[in-house]
Amino acid sequence: MERLQTPTLIIDKEKCINNIKRMYEKAINNNISFRPHFKTHQSAIVGDWFKEMGINQITVSSVDMAIYFADNRWEDITIAFPANIHQYQEINQLSQRITLNIILDHIDTASVLSERITTKTGVFIEIDIDYHRSGICYTNLDYINKLLNIIEDSNYLEFKGFLTHTGNTYSAENKGEIISIMNKASQVFESLRKNYIQRFPDLITSYGDTPSCSIADSFQEFDELRPGNFIYYDFMQQQLEACELEEIAVSVACPVVGKYPERNEIIIYGGAVHFSKENLYLDDAISYGYPYKIISHQNDNEECLTHANLKALSQEHGTIRLSIEDMNKVNIGDIIFIYPIHSCLTADLIKDIMIIE
Amino acid sequence: MERLQTPTLIIDKEKCINNIKRMYEKAINNNISFRPHFKTHQSAIVGDWFKEMGINQITVSSVDMAIYFADNRWEDITIAFPANIHQYQEINQLSQRITLNIILDHIDTASVLSERITTKTGVFIEIDIDYHRSGICYTNLDYINKLLNIIEDSNYLEFKGFLTHTGNTYSAENKGEIISIMNKASQVFESLRKNYIQRFPDLITSYGDTPSCSIADSFQEFDELRPGNFIYYDFMQQQLEACELEEIAVSVACPVVGKYPERNEIIIYGGAVHFSKENLYLDDAISYGYPYKIISHQNDNEECLTHANLKALSQEHGTIRLSIEDMNKVNIGDIIFIYPIHSCLTADLIKDIMIIE
Repeated sequence: MERLQTPTLIIDKEKCINNIKRMYEKAINNNISFRPHFKTHQSAIVGDWFKEMGINQITVSSVDMAIYFADNRWEDITIAFPANIHQYQEINQLSQRITLNIILDHIDTASVLSERITTKTGVFIEIDIDYHRSGICYTNLDYINKLLNIIEDSNYLEFKGFLTHTGNTYSAENKGEIISIMNKASQVFESLRKNYIQRFPDLITSYGDTPSCSIADSFQEFDELRPGNFIYYDFMQQQLEACELEEIAVSVACPVVGKYPERNEIIIYGGAVHFSKENLYLDDAISYGYPYKIISHQNDNEECLTHANLKALSQEHGTIRLSIEDMNKVNIGDIIFIYPIHSCLTADLIKDIMIIE
Repeated sequence: MERLQTPTLIIDKEKCINNIKRMYEKAINNNISFRPHFKTHQSAIVGDWFKEMGINQITVSSVDMAIYFADNRWEDITIAFPANIHQYQEINQLSQRITLNIILDHIDTASVLSERITTKTGVFIEIDIDYHRSGICYTNLDYINKLLNIIEDSNYLEFKGFLTHTGNTYSAENKGEIISIMNKASQVFESLRKNYIQRFPDLITSYGDTPSCSIADSFQEFDELRPGNFIYYDFMQQQLEACELEEIAVSVACPVVGKYPERNEIIIYGGAVHFSKENLYLDDAISYGYPYKIISHQNDNEECLTHANLKALSQEHGTIRLSIEDMNKVNIGDIIFIYPIHSCLTADLIKDIMIIE
């Protein structure tokens, strides 16, 4: 408690270990590779918890993150972000040190990199299956073929397979829709495999997003899973039924600095620079976080909050609305624990971390 | 251009200087103190531009920020955030080094700090004038009196005056409404001054938010102005008519990593970890940033974008929708310049900075 004077990310190690174990066992039971995404925690310490379980392949979302984890003894990394032609030197340096895969979805990127990459580098082609962020539309075989030809003609780019991120699971209405999105991806990969397996007998199909990987039990057409958020989970995942509230492994601990009984609101030290402005709607009210517990600074007494909502954020202020009953539990200086809406962004922002063993 | 390989915050020094000058002159013309808020830039280098103009009083939003600027030769700082009782040691240490003001709005905070603060520290009472974040409701004179009594009884807390932040100007519909919000604050301060001037002949009324300070020309009842965002401005301020587009002094430069002509969209390296998820609605479309210029990576040729919108952000990806005409100007590897929605949050996030002199 004495250390909780400013907004602090509390990481529950036991919950993290359980979350990793559950997902890893699912991959093992389905006999597919597990290459967790490390963009969620971005931490060498947390990364070691994976390593201790025998996991040694990872995914990251930037070249900088790949360098950081390579510096921390990770030797097999996929950068799951469309390759940036300006970072070819860093990619070459990484490929000299570790097994590196990059992602391509454009022939111009491939043409430039086929000249600039001078060390063997694995390549996944990103496929867009209805999410419409990056990737080649799964029906566009002509374009896929053009890209494959450039990769095959290059001296150092080595085609590894197809990769997709079905981020549309995050806007699904229910579990059934999440599974449908995954099944569609499975069909697309089945058809791509049929088309290309003779030309590339070792091709890998790589899939991963936390909602579907959490909800599904079997993954027929996928050779590799890349979820990331599941290590921490968050309130958004709970709302998608990808996890239970008790499985959320991170909270933000924030001191109460203001109390306004006339409107049942308190102000915490904890704002957009700690939580990010990610939000969702709960019963028509916007929510930036789910406050669930308060610890008294006077006697360390712990109480649950049952009707509290982090309803607004400015740069450093957070405004929480509470029920009258919850309001009576709160005093200036107490520490409120809040599940973040999106743990990846919150963990990226908060540099003060406390790990509970 | 060679340095622009990853998302970079471009700061236009000349525009910053002009923005500072305009606001500072407004304060001088009104014969009131200028205590700009440094939470926007959080930078010692940018801070020096103020110092070179003769400004030596500043506002910050956290104890950490106060320590940072005290370490960078700023000797008169107001921490415009409800004082956090857990940080009394840092406050005492700061008060020994510099002229420090803190903010109080609760008698419990005042009681605890009147015991724990052991060095002369200035105190502003925060007044809530319809914004309903922190502050004592302006009609609650009983509570203000109770708080004043605790401050007066303490040995080291020194009452300086009343402070307000009318953040409700950010949700105003038009300039008239912004001026009305300011006029209301002015009336409240006038009445508070009448009530307390005999007891506290030196009391200061401190006011500040960028929309109203930018739009108004005269500030009758205010002794001090504390706007912050105006040094950079941003797309939100332009939408509020607090600035012109050409006065926005920061852009985010992002490389193009994906191009999808079938849906007139491109993907940039630049996501929520660079822009924050602050957004606004433009013609019913959500917007996370305003892309206005593109520089070719092949020949450094510059072109304006006229119909482009940063429509979605994930952790590192940004999705921009463009007109067909704009789409034809864009190639993989080009650098897109984007005005952020909220420069304070964007500047807090992006560590790679380039200052254009």
